[in-house]
Amino acid sequence: MMTYNFSPGPAMLPEPVMQQVQEEVMDFQGLGAGAFEISHTTPQFKAVLEECGGLLRELLHVPPEYKVLFAHGGAQLQFSMVPLNLLPLKPWGLSAHVDTGLFAQRALEEAARYGAVQLLASGRGNDYTAIPTVDWGALDKRVSYLHITTNNTVPGTSWREIPQPAGLTLVGDATSDLLARELDVSRFGVLYAGIQKNLGPPGLAVVIIHEALLGQAFAYTPRLLNYSTLAEFNSLANTTHTFAIYVMHKVLRWTVEQGGVEALAARNGEKAHLVYETIDRSGFYRGFAEPPSRSTVNVTFTVSDEALNGTFLAEAAQAGLQSLKGHRARGGMRASLYNAMPTEGAKTLAAFMAEFERKHG
Amino acid sequence: MMTYNFSPGPAMLPEPVMQQVQEEVMDFQGLGAGAFEISHTTPQFKAVLEECGGLLRELLHVPPEYKVLFAHGGAQLQFSMVPLNLLPLKPWGLSAHVDTGLFAQRALEEAARYGAVQLLASGRGNDYTAIPTVDWGALDKRVSYLHITTNNTVPGTSWREIPQPAGLTLVGDATSDLLARELDVSRFGVLYAGIQKNLGPPGLAVVIIHEALLGQAFAYTPRLLNYSTLAEFNSLANTTHTFAIYVMHKVLRWTVEQGGVEALAARNGEKAHLVYETIDRSGFYRGFAEPPSRSTVNVTFTVSDEALNGTFLAEAAQAGLQSLKGHRARGGMRASLYNAMPTEGAKTLAAFMAEFERKHG
Repeated sequence: MMTYNFSPGPAMLPEPVMQQVQEEVMDFQGLGAGAFEISHTTPQFKAVLEECGGLLRELLHVPPEYKVLFAHGGAQLQFSMVPLNLLPLKPWGLSAHVDTGLFAQRALEEAARYGAVQLLASGRGNDYTAIPTVDWGALDKRVSYLHITTNNTVPGTSWREIPQPAGLTLVGDATSDLLARELDVSRFGVLYAGIQKNLGPPGLAVVIIHEALLGQAFAYTPRLLNYSTLAEFNSLANTTHTFAIYVMHKVLRWTVEQGGVEALAARNGEKAHLVYETIDRSGFYRGFAEPPSRSTVNVTFTVSDEALNGTFLAEAAQAGLQSLKGHRARGGMRASLYNAMPTEGAKTLAAFMAEFERKHG
Repeated sequence: MMTYNFSPGPAMLPEPVMQQVQEEVMDFQGLGAGAFEISHTTPQFKAVLEECGGLLRELLHVPPEYKVLFAHGGAQLQFSMVPLNLLPLKPWGLSAHVDTGLFAQRALEEAARYGAVQLLASGRGNDYTAIPTVDWGALDKRVSYLHITTNNTVPGTSWREIPQPAGLTLVGDATSDLLARELDVSRFGVLYAGIQKNLGPPGLAVVIIHEALLGQAFAYTPRLLNYSTLAEFNSLANTTHTFAIYVMHKVLRWTVEQGGVEALAARNGEKAHLVYETIDRSGFYRGFAEPPSRSTVNVTFTVSDEALNGTFLAEAAQAGLQSLKGHRARGGMRASLYNAMPTEGAKTLAAFMAEFERKHG
């Protein structure tokens, strides 16, 4: 039986990438050692690392005045690294945040460890079903930066339009949509992503940072959490997560082969449309996110009769549709449709949903 | 041709482990997803994580009042985490260090970011060829902890006897010898190791910490760098480095099958003896570390006529003996003989060295 893994991250990776990884586990480039048994200081590994940076630049049209860095620990360590490195940009130690869900909150809580926070808007009042309306006039001009979460994996919402208030350093957590839709890097001071959705396995973050923002971290910033250290050592300030770099390299090459971000964004839109259309067709299902804020990579929904959700998940798993359970903070179902999910996976899910509705509706 | 990878870390892993990894890259436990494509929240992954903790407890005889934690970033992030978490144990913000080489220095430098440091002894005067003699009477009683590096990969030295000055919290960086020799956990307040030598692939650290040391970190400690957070969430405070946990699980099982730490320590002693014996037999080679401080896992040496080192490395590589080049701070050769290196690898190296001496001596 064909199975599809809808896990929100760690997530499925492209099949051809996995096949190459399998072939090289025991021997990478004829070195007599596997791809994660060789030193990070070998020319072979350094070439892979450098090409990762180059491919990201190409795929995301990264302007030359930005650095592309690789940091340990995923997006949540960035929640600390951003204030540690950027709060000192202005003397007031203030950052602004928009609360669009669980991970946006965590970023805010961590920023509050290091300074004051302006909560500019929150989706809490509407249970995070939509990106909240922001009164940009209320934004405190003294903030060092404004932090947003471009796509929210738990509620399944997305900033369709990236804001750009004048004269402000914008920081974006693009963990679930980097490479999955077109994002204009030049709008951001820092754009970061844990790579375990569209780029590779967990444990690493990509950080794209304007070089003017380097060199201003708090004195108590741990060495490896200082963007300047990562920039100085080309992300090899210590032994990096070689396996993640190695797999990401193959994923990035695959991404180019697929036609790049534009082509994948279009495909992701089609995949999401297949599922949303099934949700909206009758009242049997109910989408969680409001249509103008819907994510194209995390589709959240419930059977309107919520007592049927358990049956839905059990029958879906039997049909080879895995990891559809929603986040524990949310319940219901979540279909994660990142770049690696083939259109056939979304079609199969939509067909299963229609069949489930016919049977139980 | 049989090849042996003497890389100092990332290092070779046991062949049977690599074969299992290869078999499971595409499908782990029949889930229809590879081992690093499944969520860290699945029961399957959580069982693997829990068994890693249990196996480490068994192999290292970890007393019940210690926690076994898994942290992002390898040993060098521990250089920050140790002072962030332990300096507040006493009001003076002071730690003591013994400088036994490059990584001991980095640990000291990072501690100095957060407080005052007593440099108790340094091997610098003898070029790090030996663990320096320590005047324990000079140790400042106000220190929060004493930090040592139990094995020094760059010079190839080792603390044969672990010190235990009375009434002191001892912190050990055992990155290169955890599981490779018998270390008494109960002597340490914190014993940590980046796992890329004897336990798995890079990007993760094991931290064994006495629970009395939790809960006292500086307020500005990043959430994921706080040992208490890792303890509270059983090392799942965020998406962990699932691949490292998954591979380590297999390495730990293999370690048990080999007879545990006692058996591997004995085998490592034999492997090192084969190479040291060849070094000492004539004046053709010169060992770097003084015999009483010699490491059993990193054997450092040079051809006495140093002009021959390049030829040695080239001919060794042709003979399938890979990654023998010494650290750039040291030069010469370094043979890393961690747990996964079979005795045959050390024998083959010793035979090659004898043959090289016959040819060029």
